[in-house]
Amino acid sequence: MFNSLGNILRLTTFGESHGPAIGGALDGFPAGIAIDEDKIYQQVARRKTGQSSLTTSRQEEDKIEFFSGIKDGNSTGHSMGFLVRNTNQKSEDYSHLEDVYRPSHADFTYQEKYGIRDVRGGGRASARETTNWVIGGTIAKQLIPDIQISSFVSSVEHVNYLYDENSTDLSKIDSNFIRCPDAEKAQEMIAAIEKAKAVGDSVGGTITCVVKNMPIGLGEPIFHKLEAELAKTMMTINACKGFEIGSGFAGASMRGSMHNDIWLEKGKTASNHSGGIQGGISNGMDIVFRLAFKPTSTIMQNQVTINNQNEAITLEGKGRHDPCVLPRAVPIVDALAAFVLADMVLLSKIRANF
Amino acid sequence: MFNSLGNILRLTTFGESHGPAIGGALDGFPAGIAIDEDKIYQQVARRKTGQSSLTTSRQEEDKIEFFSGIKDGNSTGHSMGFLVRNTNQKSEDYSHLEDVYRPSHADFTYQEKYGIRDVRGGGRASARETTNWVIGGTIAKQLIPDIQISSFVSSVEHVNYLYDENSTDLSKIDSNFIRCPDAEKAQEMIAAIEKAKAVGDSVGGTITCVVKNMPIGLGEPIFHKLEAELAKTMMTINACKGFEIGSGFAGASMRGSMHNDIWLEKGKTASNHSGGIQGGISNGMDIVFRLAFKPTSTIMQNQVTINNQNEAITLEGKGRHDPCVLPRAVPIVDALAAFVLADMVLLSKIRANF
Amino acid sequence: MFNSLGNILRLTTFGESHGPAIGGALDGFPAGIAIDEDKIYQQVARRKTGQSSLTTSRQEEDKIEFFSGIKDGNSTGHSMGFLVRNTNQKSEDYSHLEDVYRPSHADFTYQEKYGIRDVRGGGRASARETTNWVIGGTIAKQLIPDIQISSFVSSVEHVNYLYDENSTDLSKIDSNFIRCPDAEKAQEMIAAIEKAKAVGDSVGGTITCVVKNMPIGLGEPIFHKLEAELAKTMMTINACKGFEIGSGFAGASMRGSMHNDIWLEKGKTASNHSGGIQGGISNGMDIVFRLAFKPTSTIMQNQVTINNQNEAITLEGKGRHDPCVLPRAVPIVDALAAFVLADMVLLSKIRANF
Amino acid sequence: MFNSLGNILRLTTFGESHGPAIGGALDGFPAGIAIDEDKIYQQVARRKTGQSSLTTSRQEEDKIEFFSGIKDGNSTGHSMGFLVRNTNQKSEDYSHLEDVYRPSHADFTYQEKYGIRDVRGGGRASARETTNWVIGGTIAKQLIPDIQISSFVSSVEHVNYLYDENSTDLSKIDSNFIRCPDAEKAQEMIAAIEKAKAVGDSVGGTITCVVKNMPIGLGEPIFHKLEAELAKTMMTINACKGFEIGSGFAGASMRGSMHNDIWLEKGKTASNHSGGIQGGISNGMDIVFRLAFKPTSTIMQNQVTINNQNEAITLEGKGRHDPCVLPRAVPIVDALAAFVLADMVLLSKIRANF
Repeated sequence: MFNSLGNILRLTTFGESHGPAIGGALDGFPAGIAIDEDKIYQQVARRKTGQSSLTTSRQEEDKIEFFSGIKDGNSTGHSMGFLVRNTNQKSEDYSHLEDVYRPSHADFTYQEKYGIRDVRGGGRASARETTNWVIGGTIAKQLIPDIQISSFVSSVEHVNYLYDENSTDLSKIDSNFIRCPDAEKAQEMIAAIEKAKAVGDSVGGTITCVVKNMPIGLGEPIFHKLEAELAKTMMTINACKGFEIGSGFAGASMRGSMHNDIWLEKGKTASNHSGGIQGGISNGMDIVFRLAFKPTSTIMQNQVTINNQNEAITLEGKGRHDPCVLPRAVPIVDALAAFVLADMVLLSKIRANF
Repeated sequence: MFNSLGNILRLTTFGESHGPAIGGALDGFPAGIAIDEDKIYQQVARRKTGQSSLTTSRQEEDKIEFFSGIKDGNSTGHSMGFLVRNTNQKSEDYSHLEDVYRPSHADFTYQEKYGIRDVRGGGRASARETTNWVIGGTIAKQLIPDIQISSFVSSVEHVNYLYDENSTDLSKIDSNFIRCPDAEKAQEMIAAIEKAKAVGDSVGGTITCVVKNMPIGLGEPIFHKLEAELAKTMMTINACKGFEIGSGFAGASMRGSMHNDIWLEKGKTASNHSGGIQGGISNGMDIVFRLAFKPTSTIMQNQVTINNQNEAITLEGKGRHDPCVLPRAVPIVDALAAFVLADMVLLSKIRANF
Repeated sequence: MFNSLGNILRLTTFGESHGPAIGGALDGFPAGIAIDEDKIYQQVARRKTGQSSLTTSRQEEDKIEFFSGIKDGNSTGHSMGFLVRNTNQKSEDYSHLEDVYRPSHADFTYQEKYGIRDVRGGGRASARETTNWVIGGTIAKQLIPDIQISSFVSSVEHVNYLYDENSTDLSKIDSNFIRCPDAEKAQEMIAAIEKAKAVGDSVGGTITCVVKNMPIGLGEPIFHKLEAELAKTMMTINACKGFEIGSGFAGASMRGSMHNDIWLEKGKTASNHSGGIQGGISNGMDIVFRLAFKPTSTIMQNQVTINNQNEAITLEGKGRHDPCVLPRAVPIVDALAAFVLADMVLLSKIRANF
Repeated sequence: MFNSLGNILRLTTFGESHGPAIGGALDGFPAGIAIDEDKIYQQVARRKTGQSSLTTSRQEEDKIEFFSGIKDGNSTGHSMGFLVRNTNQKSEDYSHLEDVYRPSHADFTYQEKYGIRDVRGGGRASARETTNWVIGGTIAKQLIPDIQISSFVSSVEHVNYLYDENSTDLSKIDSNFIRCPDAEKAQEMIAAIEKAKAVGDSVGGTITCVVKNMPIGLGEPIFHKLEAELAKTMMTINACKGFEIGSGFAGASMRGSMHNDIWLEKGKTASNHSGGIQGGISNGMDIVFRLAFKPTSTIMQNQVTINNQNEAITLEGKGRHDPCVLPRAVPIVDALAAFVLADMVLLSKIRANF
């Protein structure tokens, strides 16, 4: 229950940052679907550290072992076990954190909840876990090949790039390190990150996800509304502090006469303030949602905090450091969106056309 | 699965707006807890229509029947069945909507998903269902009497009221129809609603929820993070388009050095950009989250739309009409927040202090 | 979780024997299926008390109210709420049991687990609850009209009737009070019951369930094997102490060369020791399982027992009394078998033929 | 859902007999419990093949890798990932089975359900999977150290050993290969197996499980009765065809006056026909249940069967072969019983003493 995601499609994961390995089991995946491992490696590589000077210099070798549920390149209908070894941990890096509660990290809450915690690299709270999600989500994507999911960085600190259905070229997302489809804005974002990095600071930002070629009818109307499933799943991403769909928070200051999406024909509305979902169910329009990410908690500046004796101490800024997690979060959003949609496709098969 | 909310505490609901009744079963509630039915009626009354000229004139008589799970005013540990009759439906009101897909309603998606739909009052998609949530959530609240949950309207259209931990008087929420703790802002909000209503239009807004006296350790770290459970549950509320916690979307443009919540002592940080949750687990600070509500889709203006033959038609603005759902949504947010927290308290009992 | 049955099809129930009503919600049922309420009433009537002198003289008036999920005789895809009022309780009958732990009842365990209990008619532990199951299961049956489910009494005390695929006439099950398809054996069974009743005693027996016209492929291979789902569900029936499928316990003394079911063609084996399930999945042969029911715990003889002060007391034999629950359990077995199979049909739709 | 066992404690597994590895994740296990890996190895060794001439000569090297959820010998509250490599597969052994549907195996049903199947060693249907269960169950056992679980072989073919609370010495279970606590009966059982093996045949039998030192109050009263959870879980064991608890099928021919368990004092009854459970909840007496196992389907005799073209063919008796699975199933029953009980202990913590 605690480490499982999804309703029919179920991803159960395990692993800590500095344990021997992370991994999981993907269950509920139908038989007879071609599984392309290269696509999984591509997405895992996209979330990897070390692509540029903007992210941490840690090099993870993410060799994935698949153990089951796939035979001769096709799914067999059985649970897919997988594993990724942690090959590059240096646990000595973390000795100075043994008794320290870092600001805005999970140190204090983990210690209080469990009475025991792995200080090395954040343990279970590490973003290392998201590799499992990218693997599970990218397999899930192969169940819904026709649905196009495109996430990109839509803001970094004060630099905003506004998605426009007509002008945004989603094929350009990976044309720069920052994963913003607009080259000029990407440069501004990179400049903002470098400016913060220069003073040992970090920045936050937003990611926008656009889903095209959506089937009509995904989502369950009361407690499993499509936007609710997406919100829950996205809010599991470390550092994610907000979710909005369609008009989102901007829609809160609109009037109904402007906000209402007028039907032009079945599955097509003049505007898309609904973000592709009405009554919890997809209406055929693009799904568009946006996520807020706080700035990375680890910074290269000295900070005052407490230890487990409630004593004030100074935490020195050192160690690995992502001044901006946004580019790495893009494939995570892609994968989790695919996971939710594939799960909802499976659910919808039970209900419709009996 | 589809009509159930919660992990250990489970609310399963049923009922359509114009069927004979709505109701549900609340399961997983421990034995021996005093249940005060008056408190349930109070909250159900808070979400009722007809409190003022600002909301629809429909009068619902929400007599709740409790069937089980309570004996001599105490919970017995068994599922609590309850029912609320629908006494005031006028199904003739809806005949003109039989074939029509209203803009930004669930008409089209329900029809496509199920091939059958109850046009009267929105059927299962009606906000009538939220009465079930208020009942379930208000019972759940009685499991966690020490936790203080206070939701209020923090904006209507362009009128914003900013929550301030020190100056906001949460005891004033119900001192006006709009349920904003600031009397002056409340008047501005009411003016905005009346202005929209005068031209047959509707407005959106935001609700902020503040949870005080939070126990440390609620939430499960990976896929059942406390913020994820809250986000999912809040996004099930009709018209809710966005969820943010702590610094939320504003935090996306901050730097780490400003955003980090410095520990003063265990369970107390200098700022609260985390919104009371770190690593998915409550840290003892107040939980603060904010929800975006789109303007009501039903407006009193004529709108162009289509029917089920894909023909363009004009939908006349008539019938019951909430120009602003925000005040009625406040007790729904209170109830659902209580539900999530009670569920997480139950989950935490398994895990801690074994 | 606690009061819900099923995976996709979910029956959530509530109600105590002497509360105002019992009821539930059936969720996960697809849209567009014709629902015949008469069939539900027929099965509820079959489980009713008072059919003959063999069962208790209590007359329950089982008027069922349906609140939702059905429109113009068809399922809408939404949860179906239903309620049955308890109209004939006499709570004064139970005052002498307030502090008593009756032998082989749930009195002691409920008191210990919950610290509170409704002594009237057994409260939540009453067989009254099975009415909910018959309602839910009989609705479920309408999802799988082609599958034929036939349960019957196959033994009472020492009177055994052996099912024979070729000679047993399943259309004769309701031709006698005891619900045994063999008229002669039925008379012997009735005689055994009357003999026990004459001395204030009760008897146990077995029920056999035969499912014909089974689709191939139902059941999930590891933890949701079809026989496991059936076993779990049948073992929830009050007084059921054993479950066996196919050769069952008799198969434990056979050799493989005799036990193996030789394939004649796809979906057809020479023998059916497997009971229609191999590897947890239906193979197209009839499903045949058998249930053991202990004798009714309530007897009309005086018994020594204890009260909640741990004092020995004498419990007088009086009150309502079923000397044999078997005939009434037959429609319960039918209903629960239908429920499990319908649930598995829904599950199988996700997996096969993607 | 499909490959997960348990409610709060969740074991999710993967792996096929001849894939690279089997493994799983154990979730919901509380923090701070000492985990003794030796105990896990002991039980995995107990279920291993090759202990004697009675079982297959295959030698599995069951080196278990633990990846997470354990730190310095204590549970951390996070999911425990584990893996066991399959080191001794010879896939060439199975080429002759590619198109064949063996009698009473899962070949046909898997092929029909999934359209794809791994013929090598039974793939996912192999008893190899039960190693995962023994690992998960033996970890679960460490959560409930005071509960004593003792399973033993109580019959092989026609040789029966009757459990007697007073005379059976449960410490003798592992004193012989067959795992029957009675040395003489064990010799008779071994003789029966050898006699069958001599003619290339196999035998079935029964296993009895006795649980001592049971806490009162485990089990949930309606759909999660303790006996229902046990039945479901035990019926997932390959070859298990029947489950009975307490008096079981024998109780069906008893009268109430003899069957009723008279209370001597709280938690203690004169007899134990209830098998330690009343109303679905443990009453403090020993839990006693019995399982029927069919004879192994693989025999060393030639058998007629069909291939996937529906053609009759002769299947030659060769390959690895367990003439009797009973001794190896004993630790599986122990482990699964521990799993169910630990899960119910966790559930009970939510409900009691709030």
